[in-house]
Amino acid sequence: MTDLRSMANAIRALAMDAVEAANSGHPGMPMGMADAATALFTRHLKFDPKRPHWADRDRFVLSAGHGSMLIYALLHLTGYERPTIEDIRNFRQLGSPCAGHPENFELAGIETTTGPLGQGLATAVGMAMAERHLNAVYGDDLVDHHTWVIAGDGCLMEGISHEAIGLAGHLKLGRMNVLWDDNRISIDGPTSLSTSENIPLRFEAAGWHVIACDGHDFAAVDSALTEAKADPRPTLIACRTTIGFGAPTKAGTSGSHGSPLGAKEIEGARAALGWAHAPFEIPEDIAAAWSVAGGRGAVERAAWEARLAASDRAAEFEARMAGEMPAAAVAALEAHIAGLIAAPQKIATRKASEIALGAINPQAPLMLGGSADLTGSNNTKTKDQQAFTADSYDGRYVYYGIREFGMAAAMNGLALHGGVVPYGGTFLVFSDYMRNAIRMSALQQTRVVYVLTHDSIGLGEDGPTHQPVEHMVSLRAIPNLAVYRPCDAVETAEAWALALADVTRPSVLALSRQNLTQLRTVAGANLTAKGGYRLRAAAAGRKVVFVATGSEVEVALAAADLLEAGGIGCDLVSMPCWEAFDAQTLAYRRDILPADALIVSVEAGVTLGWERYTGTSGINIGVDSFGASAPIEALYEHFGLTGPKIAERVKIRLAA
Amino acid sequence: MTDLRSMANAIRALAMDAVEAANSGHPGMPMGMADAATALFTRHLKFDPKRPHWADRDRFVLSAGHGSMLIYALLHLTGYERPTIEDIRNFRQLGSPCAGHPENFELAGIETTTGPLGQGLATAVGMAMAERHLNAVYGDDLVDHHTWVIAGDGCLMEGISHEAIGLAGHLKLGRMNVLWDDNRISIDGPTSLSTSENIPLRFEAAGWHVIACDGHDFAAVDSALTEAKADPRPTLIACRTTIGFGAPTKAGTSGSHGSPLGAKEIEGARAALGWAHAPFEIPEDIAAAWSVAGGRGAVERAAWEARLAASDRAAEFEARMAGEMPAAAVAALEAHIAGLIAAPQKIATRKASEIALGAINPQAPLMLGGSADLTGSNNTKTKDQQAFTADSYDGRYVYYGIREFGMAAAMNGLALHGGVVPYGGTFLVFSDYMRNAIRMSALQQTRVVYVLTHDSIGLGEDGPTHQPVEHMVSLRAIPNLAVYRPCDAVETAEAWALALADVTRPSVLALSRQNLTQLRTVAGANLTAKGGYRLRAAAAGRKVVFVATGSEVEVALAAADLLEAGGIGCDLVSMPCWEAFDAQTLAYRRDILPADALIVSVEAGVTLGWERYTGTSGINIGVDSFGASAPIEALYEHFGLTGPKIAERVKIRLAA
Repeated sequence: MTDLRSMANAIRALAMDAVEAANSGHPGMPMGMADAATALFTRHLKFDPKRPHWADRDRFVLSAGHGSMLIYALLHLTGYERPTIEDIRNFRQLGSPCAGHPENFELAGIETTTGPLGQGLATAVGMAMAERHLNAVYGDDLVDHHTWVIAGDGCLMEGISHEAIGLAGHLKLGRMNVLWDDNRISIDGPTSLSTSENIPLRFEAAGWHVIACDGHDFAAVDSALTEAKADPRPTLIACRTTIGFGAPTKAGTSGSHGSPLGAKEIEGARAALGWAHAPFEIPEDIAAAWSVAGGRGAVERAAWEARLAASDRAAEFEARMAGEMPAAAVAALEAHIAGLIAAPQKIATRKASEIALGAINPQAPLMLGGSADLTGSNNTKTKDQQAFTADSYDGRYVYYGIREFGMAAAMNGLALHGGVVPYGGTFLVFSDYMRNAIRMSALQQTRVVYVLTHDSIGLGEDGPTHQPVEHMVSLRAIPNLAVYRPCDAVETAEAWALALADVTRPSVLALSRQNLTQLRTVAGANLTAKGGYRLRAAAAGRKVVFVATGSEVEVALAAADLLEAGGIGCDLVSMPCWEAFDAQTLAYRRDILPADALIVSVEAGVTLGWERYTGTSGINIGVDSFGASAPIEALYEHFGLTGPKIAERVKIRLAA
Repeated sequence: MTDLRSMANAIRALAMDAVEAANSGHPGMPMGMADAATALFTRHLKFDPKRPHWADRDRFVLSAGHGSMLIYALLHLTGYERPTIEDIRNFRQLGSPCAGHPENFELAGIETTTGPLGQGLATAVGMAMAERHLNAVYGDDLVDHHTWVIAGDGCLMEGISHEAIGLAGHLKLGRMNVLWDDNRISIDGPTSLSTSENIPLRFEAAGWHVIACDGHDFAAVDSALTEAKADPRPTLIACRTTIGFGAPTKAGTSGSHGSPLGAKEIEGARAALGWAHAPFEIPEDIAAAWSVAGGRGAVERAAWEARLAASDRAAEFEARMAGEMPAAAVAALEAHIAGLIAAPQKIATRKASEIALGAINPQAPLMLGGSADLTGSNNTKTKDQQAFTADSYDGRYVYYGIREFGMAAAMNGLALHGGVVPYGGTFLVFSDYMRNAIRMSALQQTRVVYVLTHDSIGLGEDGPTHQPVEHMVSLRAIPNLAVYRPCDAVETAEAWALALADVTRPSVLALSRQNLTQLRTVAGANLTAKGGYRLRAAAAGRKVVFVATGSEVEVALAAADLLEAGGIGCDLVSMPCWEAFDAQTLAYRRDILPADALIVSVEAGVTLGWERYTGTSGINIGVDSFGASAPIEALYEHFGLTGPKIAERVKIRLAA
């Protein structure tokens, strides 16, 4: 039988050679963790390369994503259809699925996109939560797998790791196990340059089980992994490793971290590792041994398929894993909208969101809500939801704690795992804290819904630290993210309908603290789907088009009323979603925002970006500074966001 | 002598009454921490309300900023000029310095703006670093003070707290001491809803000294504070407290956290506390006792002033605390620019930044650099800089570790402390990780310079997770932040000159990985100061104006050359700083971006926002999706950012 070290050396060789060919990349981490990863993939990880999307597979997350060649090598060697050896030869080249960092949308077997440090770990927490939740719902026969993570020193130094391990420890996610690549090297040099932390003690403080082992001793790693699986707590396996293991002069130094080793060093590494094969060449015996390892899971997978086929909940389970929103939930939301049309409500859009969720959630068991300790403010919890806790994983509401970034990353993991649709709340201003995870939702095409309340200076007394002003445009700037700012209860419900239907795009719902008049009172199609639409046409001859969002639509309406009273015709356009509006036909957009009118944007935030719609000759009304601490009425007056003040500005411009 | 409990009750009463009057705010925290704060302010904190800016005062940071009434009460009672009792009566009203959260720009005695949880703690780390650094430079006679923090459970749950305590422990910042308001309540309810962490153990794992005490027992708190000062490690003082202490039914519950207690509950609290006085009324004996406490520091302050006056480095020290950039540094930077004009260099702007810093740093001892573990990539370390470590606080380069958010918050603390000008680096894409701290730099008006390299898809092979696309516009959206994206070595040096001269505004320098041709070759004024300027005027009749930033200026130039060869005249405008350009006169802006030309923006990022300059009829060339993993040349070709492709688009438009 081929020895494990030779199998691990195949990973090392591919990593060295691919990085060298690309003249770019990170050889040190794959070389350092090759042994531990070999122990994991040959003996513990439950997977089947021929059915990479098998629902009950273990999830493997390479949180230290810069070591991407580790997973590319593993996927190739264990028999995934891709990457081929040609893909690996084209590592980091345009069109190769072997991107610089592992991308979930490039290759089956890559469960999540990693690279931004710490996030893989935090995303894995969400996967482990999803596993326990679905296990609670469907039982061991259908859901019974582990979540494995390889994390580096960088992951553990990042703040998000604190949120992740705190949440995992609190929730007793015993099926989550982290292999820490304890190589004591970061880019700037030894980690002792910047940290003195006792990492095992820290994990123990968070309720984790900790094992230390030599990361190059297969038996030790194997035994640690066995122990980790048996322990009811999440486990940290501290694998003491040498970065760039095998490289004659660069091993154990930052020199092997992020650059090609160079021909001479590689030659020395080949000699030291006893690897006599040409670049990208895997000898038959080693390829065969890896193939056997990759085939381990087929029997278990087939047994699982048989159990699923025999289950009377098979169809339900499969629909759920496919992320299908139950028709009853869609209908309930439509009925709710009809109810609003019949009996308009003047409520905050955060409250409107809660009511919409109250229609959806009882009909959609896959909805899994939560908040970063602002449940009563974000209005994210519906009456039917019980808490998701270590004692009741069947609960559907997560008390994420004061961990915005950790929450967002966990939601990515929940969505990527499948079987649940996560949504979570915080104040809009604190989207800053989780911004890169929102970006990762967008990049990874996860259906995550961010419920971001208190969406402007309308937050009032808490003042400028809590008042978002630049956040709407900064979120709109993120590609593949739908950003909604509904003006009333109807648009809020419509936004929920769109967000849940958008299976490959995350959504932000920016919601008001303050009550808003319901402006949509006529039954019909989902107008929010258009992104922007004429809420009211000018009565007098049209000279002005107001385009506003959220709480400022009624402010613009007040201005329009004043101007109309003076014979100045004003259209009023509500534009809850720029991304959707930009996707409409040019004819539609020109009809809504005609070239012959003065376009006036009104939004209680920075005006940057509105020129897209108002041009260089329109008026952009907003808040181009930080806010202030005061009651809402005083603030709107102070910042000029009232009907009379806006009407006055328009009149002055028209007279000029 | 008035007992300490009655003095503390004065804080409680003011907090209850002010929140009640405002009908908004957080009474629970000030009521819970009133005793511990009284122990700190009456016996330990070194301060003089009559000289609030005394350089050697202790720094006090209320990291749990929602408990703002605690500090307003303390400032008022100890004798600061403001807030007056009238200010406190107007808590949370427009124009009152007693804002919802404490703002450093509103009141002397408030060292930093807090509210976004965890950041006060992390900012305090920077203050403590500044203290040790200046102590190393100027000695105990001039610099010898402590940094005190009150932090809540929310602060410690946030990820940034991990980065902060890790850094403080590693740097052995023994003069930093944190009083943890261990009340076990968060907004959603008991902290046990969301966390099970052993916080003392966690701090010990990070190298901290930990003491636990009853936060309502003055002797115990007093003794803990004494012990904390004596210990060479940073100390966590776990003060077990009751939130809303004194409130008959709401104490110890989340009901006292973030809402007015209500008239009846306040009446009950008055009775329970034995506080018979009218709202906002402080009896004379208690006022007098507080006045004595506030006067404690005057003697020490006077002694310090005498030492300063006697020091032969007094003028230097004062200039440095005033943040004056030495004339020699300014001259060195100007000489460097002259050198570039004389001998143009084709280098990456990140390298150009390093060379500019190489001119500045040896002449400006107040410059304190660093990087979040990307020193060699950010080019932030100059040859003259030694590491700032626990063994050598005189070092001027900080290895912040993989802690972007912690670094940014620490830089705010360094700047707010005074005596140093902090700058720090990471990749532009990871500005996401520290975004709210950048916002806090802007809100707090700190001179912090963010060196953000690898500023576009030009980063290349690392792929979309590491390629910023939406980051320029999202940073430009933050009020009071100067965002520079220089096109060559000269603009880079000019941006440094402007950033360092901008004493009440933070700056971002977005810098390229790749080499850029030096386009500025004529001596003259700092053109970057204009924000945007004509780099080259059209030779043929002007039909087109290219406006570009950073690495795309030379791309636009290539396009302009092709068009000019075909008789189409093109101006080329370099626009390194939108904020500066927007501040120019209308006449200037119209001259640079004339209405009769086709304006074409070119920037390797999302086009959102460029319509401000190109209007609705211009062309915006950029990258409106995530990037990809490939060598830079392949990416620029793929995304259409080459001279020929751009020229072609312009020709098609002109022909239309």
